[in-house]
Amino acid sequence: MLNWENMFATRSSRMRASEIRELLKLLDQPDIISFAGGIPDPALFPDKEFQAAYADIFNSAAVSSALQYSVSEGYKPLREWLVKQMAALDIFCELDNVFIVSGSQQGLDYLGKLFLSPKDTALVAWPTYLGALQAFNAYEPSYDQLTPNGNRTPDSYRATAAQNGGKVKFAYLSADFSNPTGETVDRAGRENVLELAEELDIAVIEDAAYQSLRYDGEPIPPILALEIAKKRHIDNTRTIYCGSFSKTLAPGLRVGFVVANAPVIRKLVLMKQAADLHSSTINQMAITKVAERGFDAQVAKIKAAYSHRRDAMLAALAKHMPAGITWTKPEGGMFIWITLPKGMDGAALLAKSIETAKVAFVPGRAFFADGSGENTIRVSFSCANDVMIEEGIGRLGKLIAKEIGS
Amino acid sequence: MLNWENMFATRSSRMRASEIRELLKLLDQPDIISFAGGIPDPALFPDKEFQAAYADIFNSAAVSSALQYSVSEGYKPLREWLVKQMAALDIFCELDNVFIVSGSQQGLDYLGKLFLSPKDTALVAWPTYLGALQAFNAYEPSYDQLTPNGNRTPDSYRATAAQNGGKVKFAYLSADFSNPTGETVDRAGRENVLELAEELDIAVIEDAAYQSLRYDGEPIPPILALEIAKKRHIDNTRTIYCGSFSKTLAPGLRVGFVVANAPVIRKLVLMKQAADLHSSTINQMAITKVAERGFDAQVAKIKAAYSHRRDAMLAALAKHMPAGITWTKPEGGMFIWITLPKGMDGAALLAKSIETAKVAFVPGRAFFADGSGENTIRVSFSCANDVMIEEGIGRLGKLIAKEIGS
Repeated sequence: MLNWENMFATRSSRMRASEIRELLKLLDQPDIISFAGGIPDPALFPDKEFQAAYADIFNSAAVSSALQYSVSEGYKPLREWLVKQMAALDIFCELDNVFIVSGSQQGLDYLGKLFLSPKDTALVAWPTYLGALQAFNAYEPSYDQLTPNGNRTPDSYRATAAQNGGKVKFAYLSADFSNPTGETVDRAGRENVLELAEELDIAVIEDAAYQSLRYDGEPIPPILALEIAKKRHIDNTRTIYCGSFSKTLAPGLRVGFVVANAPVIRKLVLMKQAADLHSSTINQMAITKVAERGFDAQVAKIKAAYSHRRDAMLAALAKHMPAGITWTKPEGGMFIWITLPKGMDGAALLAKSIETAKVAFVPGRAFFADGSGENTIRVSFSCANDVMIEEGIGRLGKLIAKEIGS
Repeated sequence: MLNWENMFATRSSRMRASEIRELLKLLDQPDIISFAGGIPDPALFPDKEFQAAYADIFNSAAVSSALQYSVSEGYKPLREWLVKQMAALDIFCELDNVFIVSGSQQGLDYLGKLFLSPKDTALVAWPTYLGALQAFNAYEPSYDQLTPNGNRTPDSYRATAAQNGGKVKFAYLSADFSNPTGETVDRAGRENVLELAEELDIAVIEDAAYQSLRYDGEPIPPILALEIAKKRHIDNTRTIYCGSFSKTLAPGLRVGFVVANAPVIRKLVLMKQAADLHSSTINQMAITKVAERGFDAQVAKIKAAYSHRRDAMLAALAKHMPAGITWTKPEGGMFIWITLPKGMDGAALLAKSIETAKVAFVPGRAFFADGSGENTIRVSFSCANDVMIEEGIGRLGKLIAKEIGS
């Protein structure tokens, strides 16, 4: 075989197999109760609605264009629907502020590509969405810790970035029910991030993948909405909003969106033209039909199901976890974040859990850009039923109690 | 507005609007005969077959997985179909040599990302596929001229690459009926490229987008097939084969593929996991069904239509073009490449042609990495009928004759 590593670009050294994903491949066994995945429950997909949408496309004159190349910015009726949808979130925008991508993961990849030269710094939470770190890694950044309610000064960020050989380019955060913690950044935290971004003259990337999935508590305006209220027009703002249909409608079509000021959108459209021309035409059309016909009803349906599961899991944790274990109480999303006693290792716990308790979850360390977070784990309730939750959390609680005792 | 240019990565300066694409947006007028596009004729899409494929997916137990996340390497039955399909081309491979991408354009983007550090050199033909230049540009390479039947020495490539501050990383070419020239690299040329790649220790990227569309003449084995024959096993080869369903079945689903040695495929899969997770699950399933049920019949149908159009356009060129004009005689594909007299500018001719002759085509210069090729133009016959061809080439011939005379 050839020595390919010699031929690859330097960036390729940061494209490594995720230990988690490799591990999770092993967990597809029927006797394991898995809280590891973070995927939507397929039983809740609007499959009849999608069936009707594709059938309608094939029974109309649109079929030729559905199968043909289309424009890089995305299908116009879908962008029009999004303009209206965004207005309900106080994100007032026009067509040229909306760009369709192949899932919001692609939005993150493109934004890494647009902003990050090697050695530039991205600000991310400790922990943050693993997929964001993976997307950004290809562009060889350094990371520094974003603390929305912390006390880091702009100068301290500038100094660290300069030490690492570049500039701070953006702050990335998921403000609502983030993966992995399920936590929400409050309004003051959002304002702080905006102020910091202003002082550093950087972009804010708002990952809104879970924003529609609020089960209780008062909605907090998206960061982009807060900024539009201040700057009067979206084209004056620095927040770039990444949205997804994967958690609300279905991920298998790979349709997501980016809403931002027109100069950034124009650049992203050029990037997409060069990178994959456009997202699937027929899938954009199908998403449009399903969204137009019943987005709110579908969201109401999944919120009812997921909030019940969250309640069940929080109750099971309260019942089964030994003293010294803490966890988040998410108001939405799919995840609960558990902090184990200091010194207990989430990855070692998983290995034991699979062996003995037959319960799977995700060790937390991979979500930390600095490799910390050993004593954390992520559990998801999105695909679990009451029986699985009671039994699985029960077994996990016993295992952890035993570990603490030993 | 903010000064975004200051915030963007250096690579973004090479993401520019294509003059051609901007121009072509203006050509969507009913009174213009356009040979500019290079897209498949939607009248030839297997729309009934796709309708049945999507309907079958929704009427089966597969619907949940069709709408769900799936693996980054691609849908296994589609990769299995491709393994068989490739064997018919003497490309003997296994499942782990096949990777599904969102159109072969994405394959080119990923390969640029995998191989090119800034200032590295990519070898490309003068002219070459514009979309390849656009995809590679994001990774800030230099270009040098690949001449499959020329006499450049490996040392001369090395020296130029070193002058430009990097190393030669790959040779990119479309060996069959390339966009824009329609020409084919003969067997000796393919062997020469392989030999050069061997001496330079670089990859060969074989863009096979048009390879299925041969209308006459003897098929020449793909470069990857020639190399497998020599090296005995695909995992010993350096050729990376990029294939497409866009020209044979339909582009709107965004499904293409890369076939190569396992180490490169593994790296591409990791890259895709970070960049967009996977290509649309439902579309991969639909392509699989349509391909399994009648790929060869569909290819036979479009070859019959396109070869007739090519014949008509070659006849019209012979009839209407004044002396001093030459053009290629493609054995397949969608394009004919016209060389105008020296000093005549293709872009200026287009401006005049739209104004007076009402005929559109693509000026050739954008296809040249060195900005040469002023006196060339590309015409496509893929969406033209006999009347359009006779009338349009007639008008274009008259305009060129007038220009030569003036």
